[in-house]
Amino acid sequence: MLNIAILGATGYTAYELIRILLRHPSVKITALTTRQKDAPHISKIHPSLFGRLDLCCENLSMEQIAERAEYVFCALPHGASMASVSELLRHGCKVIDLSADYRLSDPAIYEKWYGLVHTDPTRLGSTVYGLPELNRDKIAGQDLIANPGCYTSTAILALAPLLEQKLIDPQEIIIDAKSGISGAGRSLKLGTLYAECNESVSAYAIGTHRHTPEIDLILSQASGETVKVIFTPHLMPMDRGILATIYTKQTTDATEEELLQIMKTFYEDSPFVRVVNHLPATKHVTGTNYCDITVRKSGNRLVVLSCLDNLIKGAAGVAVQNFNLLAGFDEGTGLVV
Amino acid sequence: MLNIAILGATGYTAYELIRILLRHPSVKITALTTRQKDAPHISKIHPSLFGRLDLCCENLSMEQIAERAEYVFCALPHGASMASVSELLRHGCKVIDLSADYRLSDPAIYEKWYGLVHTDPTRLGSTVYGLPELNRDKIAGQDLIANPGCYTSTAILALAPLLEQKLIDPQEIIIDAKSGISGAGRSLKLGTLYAECNESVSAYAIGTHRHTPEIDLILSQASGETVKVIFTPHLMPMDRGILATIYTKQTTDATEEELLQIMKTFYEDSPFVRVVNHLPATKHVTGTNYCDITVRKSGNRLVVLSCLDNLIKGAAGVAVQNFNLLAGFDEGTGLVV
Amino acid sequence: MLNIAILGATGYTAYELIRILLRHPSVKITALTTRQKDAPHISKIHPSLFGRLDLCCENLSMEQIAERAEYVFCALPHGASMASVSELLRHGCKVIDLSADYRLSDPAIYEKWYGLVHTDPTRLGSTVYGLPELNRDKIAGQDLIANPGCYTSTAILALAPLLEQKLIDPQEIIIDAKSGISGAGRSLKLGTLYAECNESVSAYAIGTHRHTPEIDLILSQASGETVKVIFTPHLMPMDRGILATIYTKQTTDATEEELLQIMKTFYEDSPFVRVVNHLPATKHVTGTNYCDITVRKSGNRLVVLSCLDNLIKGAAGVAVQNFNLLAGFDEGTGLVV
Amino acid sequence: MLNIAILGATGYTAYELIRILLRHPSVKITALTTRQKDAPHISKIHPSLFGRLDLCCENLSMEQIAERAEYVFCALPHGASMASVSELLRHGCKVIDLSADYRLSDPAIYEKWYGLVHTDPTRLGSTVYGLPELNRDKIAGQDLIANPGCYTSTAILALAPLLEQKLIDPQEIIIDAKSGISGAGRSLKLGTLYAECNESVSAYAIGTHRHTPEIDLILSQASGETVKVIFTPHLMPMDRGILATIYTKQTTDATEEELLQIMKTFYEDSPFVRVVNHLPATKHVTGTNYCDITVRKSGNRLVVLSCLDNLIKGAAGVAVQNFNLLAGFDEGTGLVV
Repeated sequence: MLNIAILGATGYTAYELIRILLRHPSVKITALTTRQKDAPHISKIHPSLFGRLDLCCENLSMEQIAERAEYVFCALPHGASMASVSELLRHGCKVIDLSADYRLSDPAIYEKWYGLVHTDPTRLGSTVYGLPELNRDKIAGQDLIANPGCYTSTAILALAPLLEQKLIDPQEIIIDAKSGISGAGRSLKLGTLYAECNESVSAYAIGTHRHTPEIDLILSQASGETVKVIFTPHLMPMDRGILATIYTKQTTDATEEELLQIMKTFYEDSPFVRVVNHLPATKHVTGTNYCDITVRKSGNRLVVLSCLDNLIKGAAGVAVQNFNLLAGFDEGTGLVV
Repeated sequence: MLNIAILGATGYTAYELIRILLRHPSVKITALTTRQKDAPHISKIHPSLFGRLDLCCENLSMEQIAERAEYVFCALPHGASMASVSELLRHGCKVIDLSADYRLSDPAIYEKWYGLVHTDPTRLGSTVYGLPELNRDKIAGQDLIANPGCYTSTAILALAPLLEQKLIDPQEIIIDAKSGISGAGRSLKLGTLYAECNESVSAYAIGTHRHTPEIDLILSQASGETVKVIFTPHLMPMDRGILATIYTKQTTDATEEELLQIMKTFYEDSPFVRVVNHLPATKHVTGTNYCDITVRKSGNRLVVLSCLDNLIKGAAGVAVQNFNLLAGFDEGTGLVV
Repeated sequence: MLNIAILGATGYTAYELIRILLRHPSVKITALTTRQKDAPHISKIHPSLFGRLDLCCENLSMEQIAERAEYVFCALPHGASMASVSELLRHGCKVIDLSADYRLSDPAIYEKWYGLVHTDPTRLGSTVYGLPELNRDKIAGQDLIANPGCYTSTAILALAPLLEQKLIDPQEIIIDAKSGISGAGRSLKLGTLYAECNESVSAYAIGTHRHTPEIDLILSQASGETVKVIFTPHLMPMDRGILATIYTKQTTDATEEELLQIMKTFYEDSPFVRVVNHLPATKHVTGTNYCDITVRKSGNRLVVLSCLDNLIKGAAGVAVQNFNLLAGFDEGTGLVV
Repeated sequence: MLNIAILGATGYTAYELIRILLRHPSVKITALTTRQKDAPHISKIHPSLFGRLDLCCENLSMEQIAERAEYVFCALPHGASMASVSELLRHGCKVIDLSADYRLSDPAIYEKWYGLVHTDPTRLGSTVYGLPELNRDKIAGQDLIANPGCYTSTAILALAPLLEQKLIDPQEIIIDAKSGISGAGRSLKLGTLYAECNESVSAYAIGTHRHTPEIDLILSQASGETVKVIFTPHLMPMDRGILATIYTKQTTDATEEELLQIMKTFYEDSPFVRVVNHLPATKHVTGTNYCDITVRKSGNRLVVLSCLDNLIKGAAGVAVQNFNLLAGFDEGTGLVV
């Protein structure tokens, strides 16, 4: 059994991590952290876990964590994460970082989008981006993995096969993404009160959402060209799920069937990406680690659709996929529902 | 045109008050207050009001309010309200108080349930309870009206006809009430975040909800006996609406039809209570000032059902009914949808 | 008082029509129709109307309708509508047709998209399209008005000012629209069951939705060029509301502020279009006849946002606007909330 | 590996059965049935299962089913089930029947509540009621198990410990139950359309719901007295989950703590009933096989709260618990989330 710590245990992502890891046959959760001082039992924080995990959330030092766990899932906010991660690595832990702190490669771009000077810039440039479907072979053997953003995975999994095969124009990508409210986190904000966002749909952070440079970076790598996407996130009145509707232009005259086949081939060894012929709905993937994608022609555009559960395939599920690859388990261990 | 002020303009009830009063042909809203210092425009607080009301929310003294308005709707929290109300009355305003501060009659009971010493105890005992269907004749001519609680109106409108006619046992009343989330207010609380209460139903404040003594008081008056109800509120995943399912015992052998007829007669001059033969749903009254009630026999119990929109008939709508009675307008002015 | 009939009274749009017309000071609803034979009371069909309208839904001939009403709102399905409309006109009624039967101008295009031969092709080419903000002056004096589709109004109101002023490229318009479930109607379909579409988001009818040729037609008229938009509708888990996120390209270097000012000027005499500086949410317009629009720059694209309540400004509300113009009332009569 | 058939594979309960059984290490699903003639692939019926189960839903005879499977989950409607069950048993299958056909013991009561003559009355009287927490020892070794109704399990699990210990008055039980919409099934009905039941709460079937005699029967057995409960079900705007708020009277002066301790002791060997100190919410058990219960005093009543996921612990999950007991597996196999 491997010992596991989760930093920042009070959020929705941490809850999903716990839920998945409790199902994992080869791990034991041995430490949970919070900044709260009173060490609340995890079942006070997440009542769903009553009777399932007997552990308190403690305000632990990185050294204490390293004494208790070999693998650490870091679900801290960006900025807080980079300080903890470098210390954990120094103490010999292996880390899956769910924050944005190690996703980009250029400290200047990090500073521009996050408003913070990166304090671990060397590692920033060399950390493997934990999207197993693209980077499976690079993940094994690492000490630190940067777990992708939820919108990012949704968009990249849809576009990577088409970009890699030069089937679409990398300069013409518009991503209209719709997310459930859990994506906005569990902190107290007027905008995420029930009576504010129920029965309502709205766009936010147009042109300024922090997943944009991450999408640009990974798509640039996939296409071999500099990509700048147009990305508009929206909040939907539902708990979880992201649907990305992506508008792009074909550069060949491949049919829908041919495009679907290329996507299927691309993902034939990736058990959690399902290339479907029907139009996907977020409900088809809720509670699972699947990402469902398809493609349609519409006028002079190609419309690529992609959906996943933002808390699972968009966060905790892919983190466990990464952990499995790091630790030498089958990629899907604990993730089959 | 009568000039109107609304104290505590940032909440959901105040929004509904504004919306209704903008439709009222004989009033003008001249002052809105908030404790915020920066005097935000009302359309920043409630974007739905963009272009409909050009007024800022100001941090005004009671004297300033009295200079601008003859009638004041006080939507402050309990405790804060009693201080403001007595001052407003001294300055000659007429006040509809939407807080709980003047609903009860006994300062000791107020202190027990609200944890505060009442600073205006004389007035507490003499203020008319603003449920027009029961107290229509007493409301006209008052300076101050205590606007009822939302659960209270739902329960009382259902039970008053049956208690008054001695058709049910006042010692056997169980009220199981279900409310939309807006009833919990607009302040930041973990429990009213979307992802906490969406897709979930739960009871709260069992035996301790502050509307309990208010229900007991008014039902005791209606029945001529001391009534102590069992009252359990629940939160439902919806914006607005309350359904009360009330279990009681018949003291006669009246049929369902006879009971319905008695209720219809009781409310024949009350345009906003609809005694219906079908089972009411909160959606039938959403956005309206109606309270729909019916009754069914079930085994040895009578089940009385009552529903209303907690923000309208449960708060802002009945407040405007009270205002209309105070000011000599037709009771329904501004309230027909 | 003008007498009004509503054909197809059992749907959601008809309910909204009734609700609005009950508030209108100068009309009386005198006939409601349904294909059901048993003449159900309207309060059986729409329990919200209990006590508010005492009328049955009857299976009436067009002649009978013409005897009872001068103005007819036709809320029948496409295909059924054209037969009824021509007969009603022959009997001297004035008609607002809420179906798609008179929205297009070319019978061949109608046949292509609706799969039906149009039986009233002459009138098809000459009927005024009832978008008051564009065609206000043409509507007065007509006998028949084609009420716009809900997605169409959302898109056109956002784009018309920009196209008319040649500020955007008419060949580069992508409309990503999100609608509440009531837009799918009240007939029984698996896809609109609660447990199917709750907690889910999905696209449908990609490139094939029937509002597409209608959007193309009106935008072509507005721009003086042939426009072919890319249009993708989505279903959102909420009752009502449409948000369109529209991606287009600027042809000038106007700033956001300048674009907003141009839009404000365009609509300065249109009380129901609000050009807002903030990002609109469907909740801001729910239950109202407003359409809220704004614009943002994002990379090399302009993102235009537009939202309205699909049952009101997208259907029943604009129908009453059209009626008011036809009948010589103030455009907003009955529509202020 | 045991071979499993599921009859009536198109509904929500069957979907959950499939989902759970795919996780079960010792079974293989070998047959799915439907009355549809075209043998649709299961992923057309439940798109969530795309790529997870490669099987068509066939219109099979009981003989064909018996050739393919040793264990059969029968998710057919009542009435249809009894015909199939007796035939399956004759062919040697072991059956878990999820319909109501074998839950009661008296054919006359079955006929009264279901409006059908029972065609298998002998077996009706002798079938074990599949509530493992009460009947664990009787279930092993049976050929047929009657799987409980969802409301029934919610109520009985809460009340059984208190009734068995004579701590409450069996003549004073009022059950106010709130259910998500999936409980109403997947067939097409106006009342379960999204826009009908979203943002609405209502009671239905007051005093006439078919789970009533089932609750009465099992509670009578538990208490040794004839019990007649008052039972009122309600529909809540959410996918899944039942909360029962149960009002009863204590017969002793046990404290809340003592009552909770008695309940904890009663369930100490039942891994899926969690006696909690906090107030349970349906969200705490969504997607799990848990039933969370607690108890509170309120005036002269005891309020017992119980919640579970109607599709899992209320249907498919308990069915798999029963299967595990029948087949000799650990009770929780496949059910841990």
